[in-house]
Amino acid sequence: MEYIIEPQKIENRSMEIIRPYLDRLNLSEPEIKVYSRIIHAAGDPDYANWIRIHPTAIQAGCQALQKGADIFCDVEMVRTGINKTRLGAWGGKVHCLISDPSVIAAAKVTGATRAMTAMRSFGDKLDGSVVAIGNAPTALFELMKMMQETGIRPSLIVGVPVGFVGASESKDLLAAESPVPYITVLGNKGGSPIAASAVNALLYMN
Amino acid sequence: MEYIIEPQKIENRSMEIIRPYLDRLNLSEPEIKVYSRIIHAAGDPDYANWIRIHPTAIQAGCQALQKGADIFCDVEMVRTGINKTRLGAWGGKVHCLISDPSVIAAAKVTGATRAMTAMRSFGDKLDGSVVAIGNAPTALFELMKMMQETGIRPSLIVGVPVGFVGASESKDLLAAESPVPYITVLGNKGGSPIAASAVNALLYMN
Repeated sequence: MEYIIEPQKIENRSMEIIRPYLDRLNLSEPEIKVYSRIIHAAGDPDYANWIRIHPTAIQAGCQALQKGADIFCDVEMVRTGINKTRLGAWGGKVHCLISDPSVIAAAKVTGATRAMTAMRSFGDKLDGSVVAIGNAPTALFELMKMMQETGIRPSLIVGVPVGFVGASESKDLLAAESPVPYITVLGNKGGSPIAASAVNALLYMN
Repeated sequence: MEYIIEPQKIENRSMEIIRPYLDRLNLSEPEIKVYSRIIHAAGDPDYANWIRIHPTAIQAGCQALQKGADIFCDVEMVRTGINKTRLGAWGGKVHCLISDPSVIAAAKVTGATRAMTAMRSFGDKLDGSVVAIGNAPTALFELMKMMQETGIRPSLIVGVPVGFVGASESKDLLAAESPVPYITVLGNKGGSPIAASAVNALLYMN
């Protein structure tokens, strides 16, 4: 069977195939890049119907990353998927505490998820950062609560938790009430590759 | 806003929500577990229409893993997503060579993807193993070629590469011509969480 084996050709052809799905949406070029990377990561053009990008999200995210902002993730798969070479060149690092022994111990005591416990323990390090949530609705709910209670303000929230219990609600809340710019995907879909691809779109934009 | 924060309750409720989507499909209980984990990981019940499980795949995969078979992945995100504690208890390890310096160097020389180069370099270690491909169609095409050319036989192939260039074709080929049992998702959808969730379903089954 004939198939393309050159990485750049595969990516270029993918982007060509995705582009027509975006034509009717009146997107800016930077928005097209974010949409395309997400659809590419999911293999699913239906994402075009559910992605929501706050008007200043791309600019805010790019500026923060270029100034060396760190990225805080809910789960290890998001950390794994982010291009750390590109990020590191600007001075940023990716953090995830879900497997941290103190987080695991604390979550056992409270009975809450490790993802929300880990988010809480990032504390005011989240100020000025990029937060990328690809799995746990509870982490996004917790972040919204922290912003309300403590006044911390990330530069950008990429909030795309996935699933049938709380995911849709947490993203509706983000889109309706976030005090900072956000990128999200409404509904049940989402996941670690979606979070990582949105962040990588910003990293590749500069 | 009220939401569930206890991990086990979230998972149980998710599985309750997913179950009705599977009712019309006449699945066995082990198949329901694989379908449910995949749909849970994607937040997308449409996967029920595209998942294909070879009749002996679940049994073959479970038996291999319980005997300590290793798992070979195309990308790091698949490795990250697999429950290594459960696997390690049976003696198995997860391998990925996509960031191996010799693979990167070899891929530069040939111009092919790192994922297919990495798959080729696993060689006859793949015999009796579980292969989990969550990203790169080229890795799955290469594995099919290796099985034909060299006679290596994994115990199970979880082949769910994602995207618009080669993914659907590589999975059609797997379903049509694989000499060993497989789990796949036809069409463009797939991805690392899909591969990891299918493998984890097998790990949790015992």
